[in-house]
Amino acid sequence: MNRSSSSHSRPLHPNARSSSFTPTLRRRTTSVSTAQTPDLTDDPEAAQAAHTDHVIHEEIAEIKRYEDFTTIDWVQDAAREQLRRKARRKKRAGFWEREGRIGWRGRIAEAYDAGQAWIVVTLVGVAIGLNAAFLNIVTEWLSDIKLGHCETAFYLNENFCCWGAESGCPEWKRWSGFWPLNYVLYIFFAALFSLTAATLVKSFAPYAAGSGISEIKCIIAGFVMKGYLGAWTLVIKSIGLPLAIASGLSVGKEGPSVHYAVCTGNVISRFFDKYRRNAAKTREILSASAAAGVGVAFGSPIGGVLFSLEEMSNYFPLKTMWRSYFCALVATAVLAAMNPFRTGQLVMFQVRYDRSWHFFEIVFYLIIGVFGGLYGAFVIKWNLRVQAFRKRYLAQYPIMEAVTLAVLTAVICYPNMFLRIDMTESMEILFMECEGDHDYDELCDRQNRWTMIFSLAIATIIRTLLVILSYGCKVPAGIFVPSMAIGASFGRMVGIIVQHIHESHPNAAFFAACEPDGPCITPGTYAFLGAAAALSGIMHITVSVVVIMFELTGALTYILPTMIVVGVTKAVGERFGKGGIADRAIWFNGYPFLDNKEEHTFGVPVSQVMASHIVSLPATGLEIRQLERIMTENQYQGYPIVEDFTSKILIGYIGRTELKYAIDRAKRDQLAPGHALCVFATANTGSDSRNSSSSMPPVTFDTISATSAQLRVDLSKFIDPTPLTVHPRLPLETVMELFKKMGPRVVLIEYRGRLTGLVTVKDCLKYQFKVEAQENPSQVNGMDEGEEKLWGVIRRTAIWVDGGLNVVRRKLGLGGQDIRLVSPVSQENESARQRLRDSDEALELELEDRGSGGGTGVR
Amino acid sequence: MNRSSSSHSRPLHPNARSSSFTPTLRRRTTSVSTAQTPDLTDDPEAAQAAHTDHVIHEEIAEIKRYEDFTTIDWVQDAAREQLRRKARRKKRAGFWEREGRIGWRGRIAEAYDAGQAWIVVTLVGVAIGLNAAFLNIVTEWLSDIKLGHCETAFYLNENFCCWGAESGCPEWKRWSGFWPLNYVLYIFFAALFSLTAATLVKSFAPYAAGSGISEIKCIIAGFVMKGYLGAWTLVIKSIGLPLAIASGLSVGKEGPSVHYAVCTGNVISRFFDKYRRNAAKTREILSASAAAGVGVAFGSPIGGVLFSLEEMSNYFPLKTMWRSYFCALVATAVLAAMNPFRTGQLVMFQVRYDRSWHFFEIVFYLIIGVFGGLYGAFVIKWNLRVQAFRKRYLAQYPIMEAVTLAVLTAVICYPNMFLRIDMTESMEILFMECEGDHDYDELCDRQNRWTMIFSLAIATIIRTLLVILSYGCKVPAGIFVPSMAIGASFGRMVGIIVQHIHESHPNAAFFAACEPDGPCITPGTYAFLGAAAALSGIMHITVSVVVIMFELTGALTYILPTMIVVGVTKAVGERFGKGGIADRAIWFNGYPFLDNKEEHTFGVPVSQVMASHIVSLPATGLEIRQLERIMTENQYQGYPIVEDFTSKILIGYIGRTELKYAIDRAKRDQLAPGHALCVFATANTGSDSRNSSSSMPPVTFDTISATSAQLRVDLSKFIDPTPLTVHPRLPLETVMELFKKMGPRVVLIEYRGRLTGLVTVKDCLKYQFKVEAQENPSQVNGMDEGEEKLWGVIRRTAIWVDGGLNVVRRKLGLGGQDIRLVSPVSQENESARQRLRDSDEALELELEDRGSGGGTGVR
Repeated sequence: MNRSSSSHSRPLHPNARSSSFTPTLRRRTTSVSTAQTPDLTDDPEAAQAAHTDHVIHEEIAEIKRYEDFTTIDWVQDAAREQLRRKARRKKRAGFWEREGRIGWRGRIAEAYDAGQAWIVVTLVGVAIGLNAAFLNIVTEWLSDIKLGHCETAFYLNENFCCWGAESGCPEWKRWSGFWPLNYVLYIFFAALFSLTAATLVKSFAPYAAGSGISEIKCIIAGFVMKGYLGAWTLVIKSIGLPLAIASGLSVGKEGPSVHYAVCTGNVISRFFDKYRRNAAKTREILSASAAAGVGVAFGSPIGGVLFSLEEMSNYFPLKTMWRSYFCALVATAVLAAMNPFRTGQLVMFQVRYDRSWHFFEIVFYLIIGVFGGLYGAFVIKWNLRVQAFRKRYLAQYPIMEAVTLAVLTAVICYPNMFLRIDMTESMEILFMECEGDHDYDELCDRQNRWTMIFSLAIATIIRTLLVILSYGCKVPAGIFVPSMAIGASFGRMVGIIVQHIHESHPNAAFFAACEPDGPCITPGTYAFLGAAAALSGIMHITVSVVVIMFELTGALTYILPTMIVVGVTKAVGERFGKGGIADRAIWFNGYPFLDNKEEHTFGVPVSQVMASHIVSLPATGLEIRQLERIMTENQYQGYPIVEDFTSKILIGYIGRTELKYAIDRAKRDQLAPGHALCVFATANTGSDSRNSSSSMPPVTFDTISATSAQLRVDLSKFIDPTPLTVHPRLPLETVMELFKKMGPRVVLIEYRGRLTGLVTVKDCLKYQFKVEAQENPSQVNGMDEGEEKLWGVIRRTAIWVDGGLNVVRRKLGLGGQDIRLVSPVSQENESARQRLRDSDEALELELEDRGSGGGTGVR
Repeated sequence: MNRSSSSHSRPLHPNARSSSFTPTLRRRTTSVSTAQTPDLTDDPEAAQAAHTDHVIHEEIAEIKRYEDFTTIDWVQDAAREQLRRKARRKKRAGFWEREGRIGWRGRIAEAYDAGQAWIVVTLVGVAIGLNAAFLNIVTEWLSDIKLGHCETAFYLNENFCCWGAESGCPEWKRWSGFWPLNYVLYIFFAALFSLTAATLVKSFAPYAAGSGISEIKCIIAGFVMKGYLGAWTLVIKSIGLPLAIASGLSVGKEGPSVHYAVCTGNVISRFFDKYRRNAAKTREILSASAAAGVGVAFGSPIGGVLFSLEEMSNYFPLKTMWRSYFCALVATAVLAAMNPFRTGQLVMFQVRYDRSWHFFEIVFYLIIGVFGGLYGAFVIKWNLRVQAFRKRYLAQYPIMEAVTLAVLTAVICYPNMFLRIDMTESMEILFMECEGDHDYDELCDRQNRWTMIFSLAIATIIRTLLVILSYGCKVPAGIFVPSMAIGASFGRMVGIIVQHIHESHPNAAFFAACEPDGPCITPGTYAFLGAAAALSGIMHITVSVVVIMFELTGALTYILPTMIVVGVTKAVGERFGKGGIADRAIWFNGYPFLDNKEEHTFGVPVSQVMASHIVSLPATGLEIRQLERIMTENQYQGYPIVEDFTSKILIGYIGRTELKYAIDRAKRDQLAPGHALCVFATANTGSDSRNSSSSMPPVTFDTISATSAQLRVDLSKFIDPTPLTVHPRLPLETVMELFKKMGPRVVLIEYRGRLTGLVTVKDCLKYQFKVEAQENPSQVNGMDEGEEKLWGVIRRTAIWVDGGLNVVRRKLGLGGQDIRLVSPVSQENESARQRLRDSDEALELELEDRGSGGGTGVR
């Protein structure tokens, strides 16, 4: 294991930490801390020392929060939080002693401290609920404006324009009476919306593209991606999402809903002290926000909680569940109170199936379940290939890609009755029983049956292909609803076929359970089950799908069929590969994420995986300038500290950030010269430890013992004296469990007190990929040539289309400047492009890391 | 920390391990292994060695499984499983090499191996479903037989006897036309049923008493309680439960359902090789069974999965969730197919609320939520006090207690219309809307309103008191349904009051949201919400309650109100103490269980908690007889091994079981004399480890290097060379996280390679209790005197009643031998009593452990 390959975290954002963020934050921190000092304790000197300590810790915490593409160390984070709590408790005890009882101010402060979490969760929930209501209204309006407009007030959508009327009203006018013009306008609007969405995303927040679920998974697991959950992303995602959906692209709003919800959580929690400094606490809020996001997207709060549990969070303690529950409740309640659809319903497509199911139908449920599994496997496989193609050839043309896709979708989908309308609406129609009075285009008509079956089959196939192409293009885009729509059309098709069989052979023994002379098969339930199957197939989630489906529809009688279908889907899906599309995307992008779902048997000790040639620092004897040289020579995220190089007795670990901060501080505050000696271990740390239980070395002296020996700089309080260590022969699996469950950034390998190695999540993942690659070596390669050819075709087509359009434009007398199809990039803000490329490069680097199996990368 | 207090695990079941279980199992293991050997590898010697290794590991695994009142070491368990998998893979690779391709036998074996989990889960699910159907049928019949009998066939209950008729039929006869006689018979049957149930429990399976949820929580967390999940417990719980419910005691079937389900899982999984030897795998099955148990009890499979997740399992990976999902699905499907109620419904009390709720009703929902929280806190507090009283005074008279309670319940409950009927039935009535045609005793009548309110208030109070007394008595008894019934009666009361207010002031601004001239308030929904609140209040669970309530009733429109109510309940409940009744019972019984829900800030390093005076073994130099003396002198569950006593360099850890087994084996197989030297570390373990990454010492030589030096016995392969170690200054909280998440039995404290201490879950818990006791010192004490007085009263009453009954009996000419009320104990099977007392003593010891804070107890 060679650790000399460069880490890319620093070069990418070299000035982010030192220039923009730190000073303001440091100033704020200091002022806050100073404000608190008078209450601290009676001994001014100790107070001062404790205070300095506190400030140091807080500042480091601040800095650490802003480092990009690193992993959070949960163990240290928890330790830091405990220190903070202890300090707070001490302070409180001081209060008590001085005043005899807690004053009202103390009590309020305490209550505020305890209730802060609830305040944050409530605020987040309210914000998410309001945003969701806004999104719903805008989306409806945009979707309707494609078809026509309201004469009384342009800002009303069809529903509100014709409030109370059953179907349409004279105030709502189509754009024209001539249908081809309507069609062209429809396509024009689709192009316009997708253009706007893609441009916004590209110019202001490249991270707002796509679904975001995989990245948020990594972020919740502790991977830092700067700006991914920032305010800009939130704004652009919220604006771009309605545009993307209204453009008619085969994308859904659920993934993006999770993303903007988590952004909201992140942005709001930053205003609170408790969360600004503690990543573990923030993680709770992020999980809770994710739950609220799904909750508002589907109107299913419990489904949201379960989704957050099953898919988003690799660590989900009960406390987080309870926070998620509350956040989802608040968000959904706000949404319900806003009541954007004016139906008073949270349930999106309420269905009431009057008939129960029969045991013989299980046979058909199995078919639907198998379809779900196959659908998921197929889409995941091909979508990843499209993603690779996109990354390689289309990264420069995100806007053109989105517009092309939108136009293509509009053109293709118009002829099919199920593809023409909105996906949500089509699902509503497909779920319906045939007994009601609503009958969309004779769906229930016996005469039309074969036409319907054919039409549904076409819809299933085309939508699947469009999803494969569209998911991942650079607009906000989810995959839940499109998958469900595909499943629903397939399910309805199966349902109609079964109904037909039954009606052809009503007396067959197979249908004995049916009541004679009545309808027996409800095709709507098959559509419902198909939607569940497809959703489960694409995401590889089970329990949350079942709950979401119930909360969506209220069809509780069908709980067993749903469970059966989802179970079959899951079983089939597992045969074709591990993990849903989000997990595969994580793998594809090479994020450092240890998947909880996978279980491996390597049968090797950790020593086979660890990096054994490590740059460690001796406890004494290094000068500041030497330290600085070491830090510039390599880019490791931290350094183990040993007593000396010969004994290699492990003393502690220091993160790069802390070390840099400590050196800067020493230079700044004490004007320490470059030849000053750095001391990482205090004298009494070296004493015999058999009585270490009784005598803990107190950490009360000041940072730098400057007076007695000018040349010694004490850095001992910056080190982590108790890093997690394991025996070199410990099985790799156990170490991976440690990473998954405890979440350290690094685990040191210690043998009889001596440092022998170091292992990170990346090392584990690399070994895992190596083993996987050995087991099934034939992958990916050989497709390149085909992709190259495809790219040639696309390029030529694009040039041809561009030429043609230019001719048209010239003929129509329009300037050629409005929409430049081939190279819209040049119009873009240069810095935004830079940002996009940066982030892509970072991911690329990660990916290369994974692919080549060499180099150690981020530490 | 003094480690010299004796452990009680060994003395209780001294012969269980050595006499009955081991020989048979050992024989089986050996034969299996021998059968496998020919396939193993080409090198017969290595194969032989590997085989011996394998046998040793398997045997130890077997033995360990049967040790009572110890804790499973998950880390070791996982490591062992990985070894096993590696061996299997090697074997398979051997196959491959020899045959060129996997033969059909190999393929079948592989498929069987992979599918074993699913086979087991399916079998367990089917068994649980069948058992649930049986239980439902028997319970209904027993409940009805109290009131009358079917003339056509005595084995039919009222429903089946009068199949098709609306309400009653001539075939179903009450016992007599004279109501006081019916009343007496009713009481007689109640006494008879409770007597039978209690006698069965006491004679055959003391562990079948009570709910079992707290114990199962501990067992799933890794605590071993022999027989708690055994076949006898399963049988007795399954028979005793219908009797207990039919006796009219205020007990429910849900806790016991979980218990018998988990028993089923345990019993069935034992027939499979994979599970007999691997506790972690078994834990998966147990979690899945628990989910199925709740699933069949409520007819709510998803609720069951969530319950298992939220309440039962402190570690719940997604794989387990998936297994639970499947198991609950199978069990519920079997139950639905059996269709014991002939309604074709899984939904227990189907309700259809036509009206939606109004925002102003939230005010009343808050009241219900607060009630739920208070109810939970009140019942938990007083039930624990009753439990303490029971343990102290009534442990000898479990049967009499149960019978007395049943009679008392029957006598008290008869006058109240809501208490008289079955709890499930009463809930069904209370949940109903008033619009239907069913109207039980004019519940919906406007004239009767105040009578109803009064009646419901009485029902709430009396049922609460009865639950406090009954829960925990020595029959199978759950607390879910009684709590829900109490909540429902309270909720209905609130609903009727609100309805009354609305009807008195229909035009008030507060009720502006109501439609004029129509019903607005649905009291049934309040009952529904009240049931949810009480259930959440007693168990402190949230998400699963919401899902269970929906699956029970299908009232999806009320998802937000339910969430609000449960949220308020949870918030109120948290103010009164941590954890639901199951958690408190764990605390009360002093089981070694680290609660996931609690978060502590101790702010101390682990060195303050660890035991620093440890009995450790030197790697060389101890004779066998010395070892044996050490083992008899103390009862620790394991010993750290150090290089020598001066350097104290940590080498490994050996469990007591392994050590005993190793010594026995050495003596038996090699006739090693008492003065033979034991060697725990092989030579090359001591070599420099810096290159340990490349040279792992292979463990291929035989157990005892007997030929060269007769006096040396090599025990190195029995030790765990890589126990988890931490730094003494690591925060205690982090160590507790390690215990919770990784689940080692012991964590060693190592400082610079030297052993300095040892810490177990018990040490952590003890410290925690100490801190808690310091924080709120006033508890429990001072009640003793009152309890003593109460006991005096009870005793005198009992004697008086006995005397009176004897007089009656003599007058009636009955022999006095049938029912001896004061000391039924003497009639009991002595061994059963012994068993009961044993188990109680064990718990008592645990409790003392907790209470006194001294002594180390079980390790």
